[in-house]
Amino acid sequence: MKASVIGASGYIGSELVKLLAYHPKVELGALTANKHAGVKVSKLYPHLDGVLDARFTDDVSSVLDSDIAFVSTPYGEGMKVVPELLASGIKVIDMTGDYRLKDPAEYEKWYGSPHKDVENLKKSVYGLPELFCDAIKSSGFVANPGCYPTAAILALAPLIKNHIVSSESVIIDAKSGTSGAGANPTAFTHHPTVAADVHPYSIGKHRHTPEISQTLGSLNGTKPGVVFTPHLVPLVRGILCTCYTKMINGYAHKDIVEAYQKEYAGKKFIHLNGIPTIPQVVGSNNCAIGLEVVGDTIVTVSAIDNLVKGGAGQAVQSANLMFGLEEDTGLKCPALGI
Amino acid sequence: MKASVIGASGYIGSELVKLLAYHPKVELGALTANKHAGVKVSKLYPHLDGVLDARFTDDVSSVLDSDIAFVSTPYGEGMKVVPELLASGIKVIDMTGDYRLKDPAEYEKWYGSPHKDVENLKKSVYGLPELFCDAIKSSGFVANPGCYPTAAILALAPLIKNHIVSSESVIIDAKSGTSGAGANPTAFTHHPTVAADVHPYSIGKHRHTPEISQTLGSLNGTKPGVVFTPHLVPLVRGILCTCYTKMINGYAHKDIVEAYQKEYAGKKFIHLNGIPTIPQVVGSNNCAIGLEVVGDTIVTVSAIDNLVKGGAGQAVQSANLMFGLEEDTGLKCPALGI
Amino acid sequence: MKASVIGASGYIGSELVKLLAYHPKVELGALTANKHAGVKVSKLYPHLDGVLDARFTDDVSSVLDSDIAFVSTPYGEGMKVVPELLASGIKVIDMTGDYRLKDPAEYEKWYGSPHKDVENLKKSVYGLPELFCDAIKSSGFVANPGCYPTAAILALAPLIKNHIVSSESVIIDAKSGTSGAGANPTAFTHHPTVAADVHPYSIGKHRHTPEISQTLGSLNGTKPGVVFTPHLVPLVRGILCTCYTKMINGYAHKDIVEAYQKEYAGKKFIHLNGIPTIPQVVGSNNCAIGLEVVGDTIVTVSAIDNLVKGGAGQAVQSANLMFGLEEDTGLKCPALGI
Amino acid sequence: MKASVIGASGYIGSELVKLLAYHPKVELGALTANKHAGVKVSKLYPHLDGVLDARFTDDVSSVLDSDIAFVSTPYGEGMKVVPELLASGIKVIDMTGDYRLKDPAEYEKWYGSPHKDVENLKKSVYGLPELFCDAIKSSGFVANPGCYPTAAILALAPLIKNHIVSSESVIIDAKSGTSGAGANPTAFTHHPTVAADVHPYSIGKHRHTPEISQTLGSLNGTKPGVVFTPHLVPLVRGILCTCYTKMINGYAHKDIVEAYQKEYAGKKFIHLNGIPTIPQVVGSNNCAIGLEVVGDTIVTVSAIDNLVKGGAGQAVQSANLMFGLEEDTGLKCPALGI
Repeated sequence: MKASVIGASGYIGSELVKLLAYHPKVELGALTANKHAGVKVSKLYPHLDGVLDARFTDDVSSVLDSDIAFVSTPYGEGMKVVPELLASGIKVIDMTGDYRLKDPAEYEKWYGSPHKDVENLKKSVYGLPELFCDAIKSSGFVANPGCYPTAAILALAPLIKNHIVSSESVIIDAKSGTSGAGANPTAFTHHPTVAADVHPYSIGKHRHTPEISQTLGSLNGTKPGVVFTPHLVPLVRGILCTCYTKMINGYAHKDIVEAYQKEYAGKKFIHLNGIPTIPQVVGSNNCAIGLEVVGDTIVTVSAIDNLVKGGAGQAVQSANLMFGLEEDTGLKCPALGI
Repeated sequence: MKASVIGASGYIGSELVKLLAYHPKVELGALTANKHAGVKVSKLYPHLDGVLDARFTDDVSSVLDSDIAFVSTPYGEGMKVVPELLASGIKVIDMTGDYRLKDPAEYEKWYGSPHKDVENLKKSVYGLPELFCDAIKSSGFVANPGCYPTAAILALAPLIKNHIVSSESVIIDAKSGTSGAGANPTAFTHHPTVAADVHPYSIGKHRHTPEISQTLGSLNGTKPGVVFTPHLVPLVRGILCTCYTKMINGYAHKDIVEAYQKEYAGKKFIHLNGIPTIPQVVGSNNCAIGLEVVGDTIVTVSAIDNLVKGGAGQAVQSANLMFGLEEDTGLKCPALGI
Repeated sequence: MKASVIGASGYIGSELVKLLAYHPKVELGALTANKHAGVKVSKLYPHLDGVLDARFTDDVSSVLDSDIAFVSTPYGEGMKVVPELLASGIKVIDMTGDYRLKDPAEYEKWYGSPHKDVENLKKSVYGLPELFCDAIKSSGFVANPGCYPTAAILALAPLIKNHIVSSESVIIDAKSGTSGAGANPTAFTHHPTVAADVHPYSIGKHRHTPEISQTLGSLNGTKPGVVFTPHLVPLVRGILCTCYTKMINGYAHKDIVEAYQKEYAGKKFIHLNGIPTIPQVVGSNNCAIGLEVVGDTIVTVSAIDNLVKGGAGQAVQSANLMFGLEEDTGLKCPALGI
Repeated sequence: MKASVIGASGYIGSELVKLLAYHPKVELGALTANKHAGVKVSKLYPHLDGVLDARFTDDVSSVLDSDIAFVSTPYGEGMKVVPELLASGIKVIDMTGDYRLKDPAEYEKWYGSPHKDVENLKKSVYGLPELFCDAIKSSGFVANPGCYPTAAILALAPLIKNHIVSSESVIIDAKSGTSGAGANPTAFTHHPTVAADVHPYSIGKHRHTPEISQTLGSLNGTKPGVVFTPHLVPLVRGILCTCYTKMINGYAHKDIVEAYQKEYAGKKFIHLNGIPTIPQVVGSNNCAIGLEVVGDTIVTVSAIDNLVKGGAGQAVQSANLMFGLEEDTGLKCPALGI
């Protein structure tokens, strides 16, 4: 497949370029990045020196002769280009957040401006392959999940889907490395501010909250009460979610682990080996999940690389499914580990 | 007052030595540390070079001519020396954890061996001055709180005491720097393991759990259901607690903040200025607390320096009260800030 | 003394405010910060909550009724305000870099624009009290040294002054925490860029190079050939300099250490206890120095807190001397240590 | 080729296992680790879960039916097993340090005990493929370079070989992440000690010093005077070397860069794109090199991943050459980048 990236110079964009450059079935198409048009990709990202010779372009029309376009611009920018891309008949994976919330009113509430492409919003499939594999396979338009929702939903889906826990109170205490905030320097990611702190932010107001609630709710027909608190931690890569849910009936640890094993049987990127660590997944498309039972509370912990499983890797995983390839084609690279 | 430290070579012990050396009303007595007997304190801790000339000793009897002894050895070691110290008539602040849980059966359950000094256990006063100031003032024997309980209890006390939230489900997601694990190198604090991770540990099994539950319960006569998850984060100093409780009735953010302001009126070390950061308290005896209301959940965040307010500073604060001094004598040093 | 700060909202400015607020002989005057005029200092820097009630102002004239003004704006801004301050008769400590290089041509070469206050440039005294104590005492105008020069010059002065090493080749490999780059977020201090790297920058081009060379040269009448390579390291506070010089004659380690002890006898902030660590000085005004002899090369290592001894603390130290106070008044706070 | 690893549970050992597991031409043989015999590799290293099912063994004889054995035990242990391995006719890559210094007297001086296998010491080839490719190809026994020497020698070889700089004074200021100190927790790698410091150690005494000197000297027939100062920095992976050498004649920056380009033409793992960063190489087998000219001093900076190019990756690179494969077989994984 010929694959293009719109917004290729950000952190997720460049991770995508790296994955696509190594993908055995992909031919790289256009890589757009307005600010860096004409610049060699490997000049901006020297770790790609020797990997590809391409330059960034600002000519979005050059994307149209691809088989698939990945849209990796900021939110609000996705719905500006997706209609034309879809109209031209190519497959699209939108990574901007614009096509995740199915209700336009919810979009406006959380993203702060009205949705401008309600037609295509209806058609988008939520690109979490471990849960929605079949829908992705037959879709031409995928909304790639946010990084936090990926970690949180995979941690909680077997509990919600199997009615093991109540949907009423789902508490997600998430910790993220700073690469999740993107390549643009801000006060929020200024090293002296971040490096000696653990910083909770957007408490109860983060726009990944309704995305988590909508997706978990779709698994058991409820509207889960999600309390989501993201924290910035002094790491570059990685998200760890600690989730607290209440059991409806009593279950032993062993029974609950079995529910996870059953739910994720055959899912190559899910690893169930006790409480996970972040280095165990960094650099890979894996999600590691473990849990403990404390009284009637289940404490579930999940870990992902926010740029891979929480971004570029998951998008490639969906693209593989959309083109009839093995899910892990081009995604076999192991985690750093140490 | 003449003050001695038993177990002066650990991280909390050395922080105590530093605070006592600068304290305007303290004469330093014996500093015991068996492993380092004969060694100059400033040899082991070069930041104390020029501050004091003392050497560590292994002669515990040299402590007995002091007015107060701080016991900063590992748990299980406190109850071996406290009886003799108290019998000799000097005041004691036990920092080991041996005299915090009032029920000997609870001690045995969580600390793994029977309590050996039940007599004195009955007499100990829990040394959290913001809540138990009067009892500390009139006591000769104080049990200094654990680091996590200090941060968690101060974060939650106004909510529990004023029946704003239910005691049934108190979720505490705590993040601690690695100095809390002490000066002894272990696999748990090996830099390559810790530095790129956020690591939940002892989920539901940490022995600070019953300490938090006992103290919060003493404020409203309940047995709170505490779910406590500590995480090791790649910082040296600092604890941040994110606490989740359920409101019994609806309250506005403003009303709840007022409850905190009322509870902590005149408390010099409590700072209520929105969601806190760790650098804002590091190096100081302060506890900064902020909160948000999310639906019927209150998310309270507190930050302390685990070695100061979570250890040595709080012990000095109690000692000040026990000797009729101003609470903040020798504790006015501001936080690092940046 | 009544002390004002021009440019009080930066990292060094705020550290200065903290030190002055705690200084037993100082009354705080105006604190200017154009961007934050009207804002409470403790709002911007919450670690100063409870320490001072002052607000930032943009009225520079309010500085003129002080006894001393500290100028802590960016370079180029110092020479805009210093002439008026000096003309009004108050003492001034310029921390901007504008009054360090005595030769206006050198200033223009390294700072990129002509010097606009050559008259006062002639009068400035270089504010490194360990070397120029008498000149500072009798001066009304001090140029506070740069952070790197403080660490490098203190590390090398005894060797240069006593002709132990050749001035021809002085190699300084410096490592600095990111707070040295200031409070403004830039690509250079973006956490994801900095946190997993050690980054050499401005190799051979950093404007602290001529400052080091000029000062060392003033000690032995030469023009030392300084090769200075700063590195950004993933720390917030602290500078460590590793310096390489060639011995002219053979000396034993012991002899060289004695030269340091003699040079720095009675200097309270200099600590000579083997190879230093950064935590040993962070939060204090200390400079720790150690060395090894390797063949005919002397490897000298020094450590300071860049915001204290490398900035605000050193300025207060000079101010103390200018007002006839003990050098360490208000500067006795010990280092963090751990 | 069938490949076994002796000492497979350390950091370099496990990195080797990961690389070999993914190597398209390798069948994994025995993985020995006495302490962990019987344990699944993926139990100790969960990032290898799903990658291999093997268990550690303590049966060294099971190695003998391999085509090649990698010996990744501590120094002193290599010469205990290498004689038998070589006698059995299999190829060997020793990673312990036992076979790097060609002069047994030098070995004894720096490693503290006499060499016990002088016969095989004579036969070992230094496994730095960019410089000794032909010798490695025709050898059955390779001594894999140390991590610091890899970075330092690659940084300096073109200068020394082409007589651009004097051999008399070669100053190497190296900064390493803590994974270089291995998987065993010690006071040296205790997180609270390491995480806020930059720590020079073994100044002039590190045993990589003679290895660097011997190898550089072999390029121009001299005995270079190497002053080598390693520093521990608060990173997990990565080495950055800042090297200072004196030009014999004057050269322009451009000429020197050309010498590097010529020397390393066709070398896939060498990247010459200005001053390097560590993230640019982490996770890859690359070495990035850049330089600046400052007066008559050349400042050369190199960066590698200490566990890959400084350990496991370089060993696989040599093994590829020994078996007639392309140098980068199984080593194409790109760096993390961010």
